[in-house]
Amino acid sequence: MTDFFRDIPEITYAGPDAEGEFAFRHYDPSEMVMGKRLEDHLRFSVAYWHSFAWPGGDPFGGQTFERPWFGDTMEAAKLKADVAFEMFRILGQPFYCFHDYDVRPEGDNFAESAARLDEIGDYLGEKMQATGTRLLWGTANMFSSRRWMSGAATNPDPEVFAYAAASVKACMDVTHRLSGENYVLWGGREGYETLLNTDLGRERAHAGRFLQMVVDYKHKIGFQGAILIEPKPQEPTKHQYDYDVATVYGFLKEFGLEGEVKMNIEQGHAILAGHSFEHELAMARELGIFGSIDMNRNDYQSGWDTDQFPNTVPEVALAYYEVLKAGGFTTGGTNFDAKLRRQSLDPEDLILAHVGGMDVCARGLKAAAAMLEDGTLEAMRSERYAGWDAPAAQKMLDGSLEAAAARVGDEGLDPKPRSGRQERLENIVNRFV
Amino acid sequence: MTDFFRDIPEITYAGPDAEGEFAFRHYDPSEMVMGKRLEDHLRFSVAYWHSFAWPGGDPFGGQTFERPWFGDTMEAAKLKADVAFEMFRILGQPFYCFHDYDVRPEGDNFAESAARLDEIGDYLGEKMQATGTRLLWGTANMFSSRRWMSGAATNPDPEVFAYAAASVKACMDVTHRLSGENYVLWGGREGYETLLNTDLGRERAHAGRFLQMVVDYKHKIGFQGAILIEPKPQEPTKHQYDYDVATVYGFLKEFGLEGEVKMNIEQGHAILAGHSFEHELAMARELGIFGSIDMNRNDYQSGWDTDQFPNTVPEVALAYYEVLKAGGFTTGGTNFDAKLRRQSLDPEDLILAHVGGMDVCARGLKAAAAMLEDGTLEAMRSERYAGWDAPAAQKMLDGSLEAAAARVGDEGLDPKPRSGRQERLENIVNRFV
Amino acid sequence: MTDFFRDIPEITYAGPDAEGEFAFRHYDPSEMVMGKRLEDHLRFSVAYWHSFAWPGGDPFGGQTFERPWFGDTMEAAKLKADVAFEMFRILGQPFYCFHDYDVRPEGDNFAESAARLDEIGDYLGEKMQATGTRLLWGTANMFSSRRWMSGAATNPDPEVFAYAAASVKACMDVTHRLSGENYVLWGGREGYETLLNTDLGRERAHAGRFLQMVVDYKHKIGFQGAILIEPKPQEPTKHQYDYDVATVYGFLKEFGLEGEVKMNIEQGHAILAGHSFEHELAMARELGIFGSIDMNRNDYQSGWDTDQFPNTVPEVALAYYEVLKAGGFTTGGTNFDAKLRRQSLDPEDLILAHVGGMDVCARGLKAAAAMLEDGTLEAMRSERYAGWDAPAAQKMLDGSLEAAAARVGDEGLDPKPRSGRQERLENIVNRFV
Amino acid sequence: MTDFFRDIPEITYAGPDAEGEFAFRHYDPSEMVMGKRLEDHLRFSVAYWHSFAWPGGDPFGGQTFERPWFGDTMEAAKLKADVAFEMFRILGQPFYCFHDYDVRPEGDNFAESAARLDEIGDYLGEKMQATGTRLLWGTANMFSSRRWMSGAATNPDPEVFAYAAASVKACMDVTHRLSGENYVLWGGREGYETLLNTDLGRERAHAGRFLQMVVDYKHKIGFQGAILIEPKPQEPTKHQYDYDVATVYGFLKEFGLEGEVKMNIEQGHAILAGHSFEHELAMARELGIFGSIDMNRNDYQSGWDTDQFPNTVPEVALAYYEVLKAGGFTTGGTNFDAKLRRQSLDPEDLILAHVGGMDVCARGLKAAAAMLEDGTLEAMRSERYAGWDAPAAQKMLDGSLEAAAARVGDEGLDPKPRSGRQERLENIVNRFV
Repeated sequence: MTDFFRDIPEITYAGPDAEGEFAFRHYDPSEMVMGKRLEDHLRFSVAYWHSFAWPGGDPFGGQTFERPWFGDTMEAAKLKADVAFEMFRILGQPFYCFHDYDVRPEGDNFAESAARLDEIGDYLGEKMQATGTRLLWGTANMFSSRRWMSGAATNPDPEVFAYAAASVKACMDVTHRLSGENYVLWGGREGYETLLNTDLGRERAHAGRFLQMVVDYKHKIGFQGAILIEPKPQEPTKHQYDYDVATVYGFLKEFGLEGEVKMNIEQGHAILAGHSFEHELAMARELGIFGSIDMNRNDYQSGWDTDQFPNTVPEVALAYYEVLKAGGFTTGGTNFDAKLRRQSLDPEDLILAHVGGMDVCARGLKAAAAMLEDGTLEAMRSERYAGWDAPAAQKMLDGSLEAAAARVGDEGLDPKPRSGRQERLENIVNRFV
Repeated sequence: MTDFFRDIPEITYAGPDAEGEFAFRHYDPSEMVMGKRLEDHLRFSVAYWHSFAWPGGDPFGGQTFERPWFGDTMEAAKLKADVAFEMFRILGQPFYCFHDYDVRPEGDNFAESAARLDEIGDYLGEKMQATGTRLLWGTANMFSSRRWMSGAATNPDPEVFAYAAASVKACMDVTHRLSGENYVLWGGREGYETLLNTDLGRERAHAGRFLQMVVDYKHKIGFQGAILIEPKPQEPTKHQYDYDVATVYGFLKEFGLEGEVKMNIEQGHAILAGHSFEHELAMARELGIFGSIDMNRNDYQSGWDTDQFPNTVPEVALAYYEVLKAGGFTTGGTNFDAKLRRQSLDPEDLILAHVGGMDVCARGLKAAAAMLEDGTLEAMRSERYAGWDAPAAQKMLDGSLEAAAARVGDEGLDPKPRSGRQERLENIVNRFV
Repeated sequence: MTDFFRDIPEITYAGPDAEGEFAFRHYDPSEMVMGKRLEDHLRFSVAYWHSFAWPGGDPFGGQTFERPWFGDTMEAAKLKADVAFEMFRILGQPFYCFHDYDVRPEGDNFAESAARLDEIGDYLGEKMQATGTRLLWGTANMFSSRRWMSGAATNPDPEVFAYAAASVKACMDVTHRLSGENYVLWGGREGYETLLNTDLGRERAHAGRFLQMVVDYKHKIGFQGAILIEPKPQEPTKHQYDYDVATVYGFLKEFGLEGEVKMNIEQGHAILAGHSFEHELAMARELGIFGSIDMNRNDYQSGWDTDQFPNTVPEVALAYYEVLKAGGFTTGGTNFDAKLRRQSLDPEDLILAHVGGMDVCARGLKAAAAMLEDGTLEAMRSERYAGWDAPAAQKMLDGSLEAAAARVGDEGLDPKPRSGRQERLENIVNRFV
Repeated sequence: MTDFFRDIPEITYAGPDAEGEFAFRHYDPSEMVMGKRLEDHLRFSVAYWHSFAWPGGDPFGGQTFERPWFGDTMEAAKLKADVAFEMFRILGQPFYCFHDYDVRPEGDNFAESAARLDEIGDYLGEKMQATGTRLLWGTANMFSSRRWMSGAATNPDPEVFAYAAASVKACMDVTHRLSGENYVLWGGREGYETLLNTDLGRERAHAGRFLQMVVDYKHKIGFQGAILIEPKPQEPTKHQYDYDVATVYGFLKEFGLEGEVKMNIEQGHAILAGHSFEHELAMARELGIFGSIDMNRNDYQSGWDTDQFPNTVPEVALAYYEVLKAGGFTTGGTNFDAKLRRQSLDPEDLILAHVGGMDVCARGLKAAAAMLEDGTLEAMRSERYAGWDAPAAQKMLDGSLEAAAARVGDEGLDPKPRSGRQERLENIVNRFV
């Protein structure tokens, strides 16, 4: 036991009228919702990255957090893991996820880095065994080192492509070994700063080929988890190829991988792409590529990734509504890829940010379930499209332009608009949130 | 001859030091650039819509333009056509394009509307015959009438789908009859205001089916032009399905239409989607779906479509650079889908806005051609990726993740970043613009 | 009695578990909150403009609403007033507000327009007398007519300035006669489309002088209400001089009017200016110029004024928190300057949009009051600044740079950062919303 | 002589057709423009900060630049200065500017930091003496250290306020000693992340008091330069108090400092605030607070400060047009507060980025001067407002609302809109850029 979180109790459900900060007011893991435990709906996960590796910097300022585990030794890495698993215990988090970069210091060469990843993998495995915490996903950080400054799989230098292959292979191996439920790819450097120095066609072709290699390797090693791509339109680069769900879908179709790869959708990334979170979720569901979520929000007025803990129940409810309509999570979960504000220096802040986020998600999911069970929203939606259920409508859809066009004259059609009833639907949502 | 443009002379090329406003300073239609006449490179087109049908309103104000042809009679429609063709003559515009809505008043029912479209089609055909002006594209306005308020092909009401089919069929027919070189679809109402009342999956399926019908009809009537989709992310709706080039590509792939449909890309729409114009053009080229352009810019600080005439040569040059790299226009062209500012009341404003835009495009295209002929930019780009030309690199690309990964250890790879030289590339561009 | 709202009952408070749509679930006008009736806290107002005059158009489409009172006769204007007052009755709205343009058709000349305004003023006055509905504010529409296309008080043409003076005088007179509690100025055309044709200095000087004239006239006629300016950064123009609260404050200071004029702050306009609503409210409060609010939200992803009814309780609660900290409304109120979505065609939509908005505001205000009464947030804020309450700190503030600087060496200062506790504060807010 | 820039020649003017990259094509320091040498118009300055201290990091990646002077020793600081002055010589830059943080490593305590600043100040002074390079401005970095995470002058902790006073005093002293022409304040941490923990009124009052202390100290020590505030709306915080020129003007008026403080306006910051650069410059000129510029652009599609070298002549020309209309620079200048792209690793990139930027500025200023000398733009502007030059118009402006209003009836006014001629004005600009 480290003493980082000393005096902080395990967080348990105490109801909406709980006293004090260190309690769940809404998240009762065992509460049954639509026939499933709340914990199994939400499948909460902590991101090692932001909670334990990020030092609190921003573009105009450096480290603000002072953590006893900061440093580049294996001892520090193990202390970091000790504290992380203490936090998972305090919060009752069933899952966590990591980049290679978060859990081990980089070595002097690839072999050393890989050996360290293996070693820390063993260490994490023992802790997982002891605590029951599971790995939601693993991933390779291919954006922080200057090695990746011009891309990983899309780098103009084929040696970097090889290095990316080695990095992903190593991370897939450890993820597989730790029974990770997914493997994530985020292409933060797979894009460009300027078209002037970029061969867009070549880079996209390399990215497609790399993804195919990853999928092949997954099958080769028998990894049962899902391969997930996390879309984001920009930042750190001016443009990234995995702009949003629809863009990635086109990419997958281009390379014939739409049956192999799913989406890890982040609220903040949805916003940067000009979409709502629920839009991206609905789009992924309809395209058959919904996978998992990162539940961290961006500030609508800041044009960069602010990665804040969720705090707005109505927004979260609409997101889970789409998740539930997609059948809920299978391999995916609710990952907080969220950063403490850099002024939130204290261990208490780290715990309570998660407590607040988990309560917001619990309220959101329960509201979403209630809306679905109530059924009014879906009934109104169905009614709006009911005309299409008629055989004549379906026949028209299967026919030709001329046949459809002919109906106008033949039947004297002069269609009359009907109210879209948006405000009434919003009022209904507000009964639940 | 109407007297709307009285006293305004035909615009001819008079060189950079021309006196007065009524002259081209840079657009000499006969100038040879890369072995082709400038006119044949640029293929300028006037949009009937903004130049003759738009009354000058904005969300907070009504009509500012007072045009003798405003009104809903066929006489007014013919006067409008007379003035339009006078403008094409004054400007020496080889092409124009129109919506059904622009060229004829809507009738009391579809049959009357269609008959009017036929009648005005004959009138336009005679004028085209007489003047040599050609039709770049035709399109159906399926966004202005309240009939379309909830979508055309994606409307919850199948009768509206039928009406859309009839509208497109009628417009395709007249476009075909007038030897239009393309047919355009812009889905301004194919999207949603709120997900709460929207069946995203159903609407996209209907849109895909509709597009297939359009393609089938094209082949049936032997229309030789291209079917073009014009992407735009939002406005008038909150979200439109044809968000940007990459999104539309995914849509085409989903419905197996990527070989049948190309893109009509607008600078302002690119900006609304969070992209540069050159990005959208390069993406379309690489995906094999580049078609045509709307050369009207948006103000970067206004969050809506401002549809201004182009006025920034460096931006326009980078756009044409991508067009030339795509092989230039085939059926496509440079359409000014641009609105006069609503305070620009005078006939002179209408002429001179086009003169300025044409000169900017001529400068841009000539700069783009000079950059290509100079070759430095492309040489630097090729050099950056030269490592990929090696057989070992190509072999790696064809191999497995493990094989690529193994190179790191086997060859002791530790790749070193090389400068991306962005500023130097920008300096080179500035030698030409 | 018209039959527009036939079958729609008066809306009354029925509690959170009310059946059906036609009931307040949270707005009980008589509920006591912080010692005041909820109705007197909120001071709800309906905007004649959006609810009765706006036809449902957007930049790509025309009228969608079909209202029996549309037209430009005085009969239509009176029918419009009849229906409006029926809606006020149904909703129990204590206030309304209008533009001249909303309530009477424009005449053939100014005198006729003014006479019609007088006549309709009498008609409205009788209805107010009969129903007890009061006028929150009046205002002159100086943006819709082409007359104002280049500005009202800032027009390059002094005749337009005179016309603006006449328009404002007429509206102030009728507002005064109807015992309006405020008079509002919104400068939608007081800005520019391009700096190239704009004399920024001259236009701002004219705007300042015009505002002084308005203030002088207010005193002359003994109008007891407040003069309010409504900031908005852009749309319809590229830039408007009343960008945001801080900008207007500088303008008022420049012309010595900061004691005479207050702010009418709209959520949507705050967002367009890159601020949160609560920011603008807090800023106005601290600068001593808080007046009234327009409670209509913009969609964060649409770059224009969407003017939607409020539907997010947490946001509304934070806004009312600032209002309550400012002491609540005096002459101001909660005006819904909100548009139905243009697809919301039915009379029911109009009623229920207001019902939903009023319930959201009631929840928000009650949450804000509870947060204030709870006191935790304010206690934590005070504690954060407690160091400044020390006499030494205050003395430093009154002293010189050298004296403050000297403390560092003299006292060996090396200040240590303390947590800003943002997530904990957000958790506290979430107990109330 | 260090060998960092070995093989790079001094850059001299070689005309538009120069061979090779290492030449000015447009910047001839001695060229006479409007009666003044180009060098004296432009007053170019290099920012020590971005060119020598910034390591190439971004929010998702660390250092990319490998510079021999990186490190926290005084030896490294002197090597850095040696290289910097070599670059000034190569470029022929007349000015430079710095933060304390850029030129010396921070000490273990304030006294040591201050002593190091003194020592490096001497070192810089000798180099300035030897080379003739002058100091455009000095400033204190009060945003990078975690000490400032919650603000400097606006910190909740009065000890930080004292530390800020000491920091600014030390920087003002060294700036004064080195005959700096201005002293700059940029309040990157003077703002908030959340209103929930912020006492807006108190913070603004402290900021006002701090600024007064700075002004008092300037007078006390006899510093002849200008005090400049650099507005920026956000980033690193959610909101900064110095949002834009208009906001700062209101702040200065509130604290009675509008005669003492001027603006340092950055193109990129203007864009982040939703303005054009020329807007901010024109506004500062009209408010009498124009001072200096940072000529580094933001990417319009990236929602953060990209700080790129200028590369678009038309934009730069419009900016200098406003500068020249303000009478040109007095104490101010053209500072490149620009970052190399982080992939631009080579010494050549650093030199050529400045060369390109200087050429773009030279072209822009010469175009601006030509537009002014041509006079068409100003003549058209004057003509547009000519009605206001009539005595009757001026009399109306001095009179009452009633008197102005009475003109409408008395004179039968019915003002007719006149064209704003925006496109024609844009065409005229395009003759020069």
